[in-house]
Amino acid sequence: MNIIPFPERSQWPALLARPVLEAQDIEGKVLPILEQVKSSGDAAIREYARKFDHTDLVELAFSQSAIAEAAEKLSSELKEAIGQAYRNIHKFHVAQLQPAEKIETMPGVTCWRQSVGIEKVGIYIPGGSAPLFSTVLMLGIPAKIAGCKEIVLCTPSDHPAILYAAKLVGVTKAFRIGGAQAIAAMAYGTESVPKVYKIFGPGNQYVTAAKMLVSKEGIAIDMPAGPSEVAVYADDTAIPAFIAADLLSQAEHGPDSQVLLVSTSKKLLSSVNLTLSSQMDKLPRRDLAAQSIGNSKAILVESEEEAIDLLNEYAAEHLILSVANAEIVSEKIVNAGSIFLGNYTPESCGDYASGTNHTLPTNGYARAYSGVSVDSFVKKITVQHITQEGIKNIGPTVETMAEAELLDAHKKAVTIRLKSLL
Amino acid sequence: MNIIPFPERSQWPALLARPVLEAQDIEGKVLPILEQVKSSGDAAIREYARKFDHTDLVELAFSQSAIAEAAEKLSSELKEAIGQAYRNIHKFHVAQLQPAEKIETMPGVTCWRQSVGIEKVGIYIPGGSAPLFSTVLMLGIPAKIAGCKEIVLCTPSDHPAILYAAKLVGVTKAFRIGGAQAIAAMAYGTESVPKVYKIFGPGNQYVTAAKMLVSKEGIAIDMPAGPSEVAVYADDTAIPAFIAADLLSQAEHGPDSQVLLVSTSKKLLSSVNLTLSSQMDKLPRRDLAAQSIGNSKAILVESEEEAIDLLNEYAAEHLILSVANAEIVSEKIVNAGSIFLGNYTPESCGDYASGTNHTLPTNGYARAYSGVSVDSFVKKITVQHITQEGIKNIGPTVETMAEAELLDAHKKAVTIRLKSLL
Repeated sequence: MNIIPFPERSQWPALLARPVLEAQDIEGKVLPILEQVKSSGDAAIREYARKFDHTDLVELAFSQSAIAEAAEKLSSELKEAIGQAYRNIHKFHVAQLQPAEKIETMPGVTCWRQSVGIEKVGIYIPGGSAPLFSTVLMLGIPAKIAGCKEIVLCTPSDHPAILYAAKLVGVTKAFRIGGAQAIAAMAYGTESVPKVYKIFGPGNQYVTAAKMLVSKEGIAIDMPAGPSEVAVYADDTAIPAFIAADLLSQAEHGPDSQVLLVSTSKKLLSSVNLTLSSQMDKLPRRDLAAQSIGNSKAILVESEEEAIDLLNEYAAEHLILSVANAEIVSEKIVNAGSIFLGNYTPESCGDYASGTNHTLPTNGYARAYSGVSVDSFVKKITVQHITQEGIKNIGPTVETMAEAELLDAHKKAVTIRLKSLL
Repeated sequence: MNIIPFPERSQWPALLARPVLEAQDIEGKVLPILEQVKSSGDAAIREYARKFDHTDLVELAFSQSAIAEAAEKLSSELKEAIGQAYRNIHKFHVAQLQPAEKIETMPGVTCWRQSVGIEKVGIYIPGGSAPLFSTVLMLGIPAKIAGCKEIVLCTPSDHPAILYAAKLVGVTKAFRIGGAQAIAAMAYGTESVPKVYKIFGPGNQYVTAAKMLVSKEGIAIDMPAGPSEVAVYADDTAIPAFIAADLLSQAEHGPDSQVLLVSTSKKLLSSVNLTLSSQMDKLPRRDLAAQSIGNSKAILVESEEEAIDLLNEYAAEHLILSVANAEIVSEKIVNAGSIFLGNYTPESCGDYASGTNHTLPTNGYARAYSGVSVDSFVKKITVQHITQEGIKNIGPTVETMAEAELLDAHKKAVTIRLKSLL
């Protein structure tokens, strides 16, 4: 890693800038796919499967037998691991449900929020080299806890671990559809695929572009997406070999992965660099990792305060605090997706099984967005009830304000009630 | 109102369809404005003010004296009303703050969520005939409760009630900028206007298009927008004159306002129609209201069950339940922005002062979106800490899952820690 000693604050924006992705071209390719699926439904999906994946899709839905057989194809060790992850993720997410609390804001005026699961949600799981069954857990578990009635899964992969996880979390319909056409199918509905109201999940830039385009039509999406990233803040209490392993676990995602190491200790930075090379050589994905590490930065800063400011400016998806006073530092972090404290909390535990969600804001979006949680699958409908006493208490306030906003009928809806009570 | 007796379910989608707005044209006009503000900052804003509003803006920010003088220009009655609304809204919203709860998902594995206000948020308040100071309360109060440090307000209006409300809620910077250029200024920042991370507030179709466009660049927005709407479900316990007044208070917003009345009682529908005409004649905005009422629908249904299904399919922004068993019915509503129960809970109380937020999902977006709340201004950063005992407990699960996803470095980040503890 390239060690950058004591950069000026004015240099930070350039230093921390993410690569800019050109979306225009891709949108141009994705738009016709969306339109085709909207107008031709299943037929369009079959056509794209032939064209892009050279696959003849007779049935779009996974068969009950394929789903049932998935369990038989997995080792009992993997099934137990998935089961443990399920329990931890469930335990953390179920605590996010909020009971409705009735608030009497004035005598006779009572307001509350009614939590309701979004009726129909869609989950996209990409194909590619890594079968992301963990993402099925991360999206399916909170969907179920939220009370979503229809949980639709689309994936081009038929990996048994994905189907096993889908059954475990309670996916209601699973389809072997990938790419932008899968997003279109869930956004508009087809003969086979139900239309959903919100779409979740990672994907390549075509999938990402499709999600952004359907979101303009009012289909909600989890959050905008960008390449995965980790920032590590470490001091001399950190163990360099652990830090190097954490950086590599980010770097193996691919050459566009972002890796940032921040420290007040030059010694720590040098030690991490040393062990990084030797660990990298032993990785099956070392070529991918090497590219990403080549683009990564080790930044030497003057003070803890400066480190915290820099980390807040970067707004990392994952932030590892391997420092003596990690929890105190974490309370000063205002921009991050998920924070990992101390020497024995590697990011990969959160990626899989500690209980937190791994669908997190990348690309600096942590400044405004949270990661996925039960909240992401729930709507809060406000409800209010005003008694006769209540309208007498609040009525004059509303009349005065409505009049000042020149909304006479708003005022009259109160006046007519107040007059009836004279 | 046009009474539609017992429509078939197959007719519902057409009956409940919202008018489709053509956004393409407007985007074409808004994009150059965004680009110009991005590249030329304040100068572009001054140019657009001259071009569109025929105004020479010397200072973009409202002066301290203008803000101080605003209070003197308001009647004490209006200031008291705003104060009462402030207290109610604050009381309802402050209860939405969630304390961090630490969850030990496995022995030694502890996860929690840290709530942090979005550092910089922007509020847009349109000009036009109605000075929407109530929206300043509805957005500023939760922003402050959430702990947002920079709360920027842009509005083309210099109405003293807007400035008074802005000061009351703790807006940190207020600018006299309107239209798409205001959204651009807050999204990109200019010499005068700070760049914010999330933009809230209503506006005309140019403002709406600008918000959608900047959201594609990762600036968060409150929610997509459409014309305001109310649905009323009433039975023979409802008071027709109250219902008529509620429908008119929606209709006066303008000809694109959506009004829907649903009942199992033909008698109720006829009575509402009768009183509606006579009430409408007395309104200053009767021409606007008449257009909107002309497009509205009174639907006669067979049963309560059918009414609930229809209301859930419509997903109204505002839903008034003027029926005997209103609270029981409300628990069966899964798609709505805000619900008003009984005869003495007019929508206008929620619009101004009862405590609930009036920034709500329109256009059927209530299927996936909630109205604005403190949640809208808060990020939840997940935090986790794993002890040496914890990594021994969770480590093997993570190793197994990472291996199955072919992510070797993810596995090794755990293995290296487990080995160190042998």
